[in-house]
Amino acid sequence: METYSFARSQELFERATRVIPCGIYGHFSPAPLVPPTSYPFYAQRGTGAHFTDVDGNDFIDYMCAYGPMVLGYDNKVVHDAAAAQRELGDTLACPSPVMVELAEKLVGLIPFAAWAFFAKNGGDMTNYATMIARAATGRPLIVAIDGGYHGVSPWMQGGGHHGVTAGDVGGTVRIPWNDTAAFERVLADKPGKVAGFIATPYHHPTFTDSALPAEGYWQRIRELCDREGVVLIIDDVRCGFRLSLHGSAEYFGFTPDLACYCKALANGYPISALVGTDALKGDAARVFYTGSYWYQAAPMAAALACLGELVRLDAPRAMQEYGRRLTDGLKRLADKHGYELKVTGVPSMPYLRLTDDPSLMLHQRFCAEATRRGAYFTSHHNWFMSCAHTQDDLDRTLAIADDAFTALENSPEGQGGS
Amino acid sequence: METYSFARSQELFERATRVIPCGIYGHFSPAPLVPPTSYPFYAQRGTGAHFTDVDGNDFIDYMCAYGPMVLGYDNKVVHDAAAAQRELGDTLACPSPVMVELAEKLVGLIPFAAWAFFAKNGGDMTNYATMIARAATGRPLIVAIDGGYHGVSPWMQGGGHHGVTAGDVGGTVRIPWNDTAAFERVLADKPGKVAGFIATPYHHPTFTDSALPAEGYWQRIRELCDREGVVLIIDDVRCGFRLSLHGSAEYFGFTPDLACYCKALANGYPISALVGTDALKGDAARVFYTGSYWYQAAPMAAALACLGELVRLDAPRAMQEYGRRLTDGLKRLADKHGYELKVTGVPSMPYLRLTDDPSLMLHQRFCAEATRRGAYFTSHHNWFMSCAHTQDDLDRTLAIADDAFTALENSPEGQGGS
Repeated sequence: METYSFARSQELFERATRVIPCGIYGHFSPAPLVPPTSYPFYAQRGTGAHFTDVDGNDFIDYMCAYGPMVLGYDNKVVHDAAAAQRELGDTLACPSPVMVELAEKLVGLIPFAAWAFFAKNGGDMTNYATMIARAATGRPLIVAIDGGYHGVSPWMQGGGHHGVTAGDVGGTVRIPWNDTAAFERVLADKPGKVAGFIATPYHHPTFTDSALPAEGYWQRIRELCDREGVVLIIDDVRCGFRLSLHGSAEYFGFTPDLACYCKALANGYPISALVGTDALKGDAARVFYTGSYWYQAAPMAAALACLGELVRLDAPRAMQEYGRRLTDGLKRLADKHGYELKVTGVPSMPYLRLTDDPSLMLHQRFCAEATRRGAYFTSHHNWFMSCAHTQDDLDRTLAIADDAFTALENSPEGQGGS
Repeated sequence: METYSFARSQELFERATRVIPCGIYGHFSPAPLVPPTSYPFYAQRGTGAHFTDVDGNDFIDYMCAYGPMVLGYDNKVVHDAAAAQRELGDTLACPSPVMVELAEKLVGLIPFAAWAFFAKNGGDMTNYATMIARAATGRPLIVAIDGGYHGVSPWMQGGGHHGVTAGDVGGTVRIPWNDTAAFERVLADKPGKVAGFIATPYHHPTFTDSALPAEGYWQRIRELCDREGVVLIIDDVRCGFRLSLHGSAEYFGFTPDLACYCKALANGYPISALVGTDALKGDAARVFYTGSYWYQAAPMAAALACLGELVRLDAPRAMQEYGRRLTDGLKRLADKHGYELKVTGVPSMPYLRLTDDPSLMLHQRFCAEATRRGAYFTSHHNWFMSCAHTQDDLDRTLAIADDAFTALENSPEGQGGS
């Protein structure tokens, strides 16, 4: 199988490093993409589940823009809805009627939601949720999960990160995932001080396995929050609409007080949302919270159209099904080549790694070998399925993976193979 | 002169309050728009310097979406650039080449800038700037101005706001505007503790007059920052490209270390930017900072096109000139009707108020009377000029204002008039 080369990506990255810190920053940073000469750094075009890089290479994309692409790139239904709104107006001096329609849509879709609020970043919503929890309770502390990611605000990043002070993280208490006893201990140690509990629906850190909620975990967390008057916040930024059309809390059988949405909401148009219970509506109104582009109408029209398509396609079911077939196929291929592939999380957002590989170097080499053959795999982050992945994409991906495993066996890193 | 009615705006707002906290939140909140029955709450369409509301009323817009609209609504040059990029790809799994081009453009335009970084909100950039200052100096404190607005993060909002804890504001020291002695006192009281100084180029709070920097103010702040190794951060989110094409620091004759841009960068497409000195590039790279849509390519293409148009039109000069003629005309009309109109700030972003009106009720009535005749005036916030305002708009605005002053004289609030 032919392998790609990435000369123009490398050249553009070199140019970027002169005028942009890191060249490419944040979660798009190519730092974990090892070796860098096996990865595209710049995309030229996207269609369906594919993108083409600046070197003209085509990829079946399993990162889906790290989540936002849920219906396929360049989706006509979503584009047309955004364009029709843009024809009228986009960023204006007053909101557009579509803002009300979108709030009504989300309130109709998510069972516990009595209201919705719109912003741009997922982190805008996790920040706002913690402020509402503090306003509602008059208490200072937020309990979060060790390694849980809720955006880049200093309190969310936690101590030890560059630019984060001890004062920034003083209002956050971190406990292990799936540990209700640890939450009980915090509540006992800090009586009347805990405003909110924030977590993702299941634990999906980077560079390590995902972990689903233990049996009864969320129900016990809900009980403890009710008992102590703590606001239960779900960060559904990454999972939202990839597990259930009605929110991931519904999928895991519990009811939060606030839930944050972002990535899959508008198929790449920039919008995030917070939804909440009627009891917290007044507190949400008291917190001053705003941003320059938060009333932008075209992404709201895009979100309305995207949600309509997600419902029409029963998107979570479709993505779970594709992800199941993909990961089953990859596991079989790993086995055939003498490796073991561990798959955690949920099929629509699987985290994969080859076992017996504590440095992740073996798994990184496998992902690189697949990527340079046209299946865009990353080694440190959960993948994302979309509704645009087809049977042809699956067949092609498995053929690529087969060839990538063969290349891995023949590489210095590949000694664990058959 | 005929006056407008706003039945559909009111009806839609009533519907909104059922599913959105406050109905319309943040800086778009209609709370300061008194009486509410004289204002549009929802826009249907925008063209040039005008927008039409959901009741079909046309307005000459002096809020310009609270800043983002700088070339006129529905600007073809910017739309075409965004559409061409969208055809290729918008939110993809890798950045697009336009990201590098935009960074190069900003570095070329802003004299002190060695690099650029892109996000969505203005507040994303003020937050990041303070994190870079802390990472660069290893110090905890940020000095800001009393009443200075840098976004809605808890530390920025300051104590006393709902959802903000004492711990949130512990890293910020507030001093009065234009008071270099106060800054010297902080530096003396907290030796080796101040990481950064953040302020807008001039002071533009809401509900009160704007204040330009005193002679030598910025030069003295720069000296003190240099002497103590403090990072000088300019929040140019609101003023950027309305004072100078090369940044507002250039306009006031000093050099910052970091400058934040947002509103006028892409004529309403959602993007913000931080630019900085070469000395801080490594620290900027060390701080982990990212967001779901920050690599979105269409707003970057829109920003490139918008900056090109701003240069072609010598936009700051055009907006300052229009603002000067508008505010001179309004002052003359106020005088004719026996009022005094005080204008502060800069002509491209003037803050206006009628004097002898401590409750602002007289000025609010004047703004409402103008708005219900077709000139969208707000009473609590600086206005924004754009390059799309025409001589016809000016003539029409002054005719409306003349009529509004007459209505004011005849209203119960208008007793200060002739």
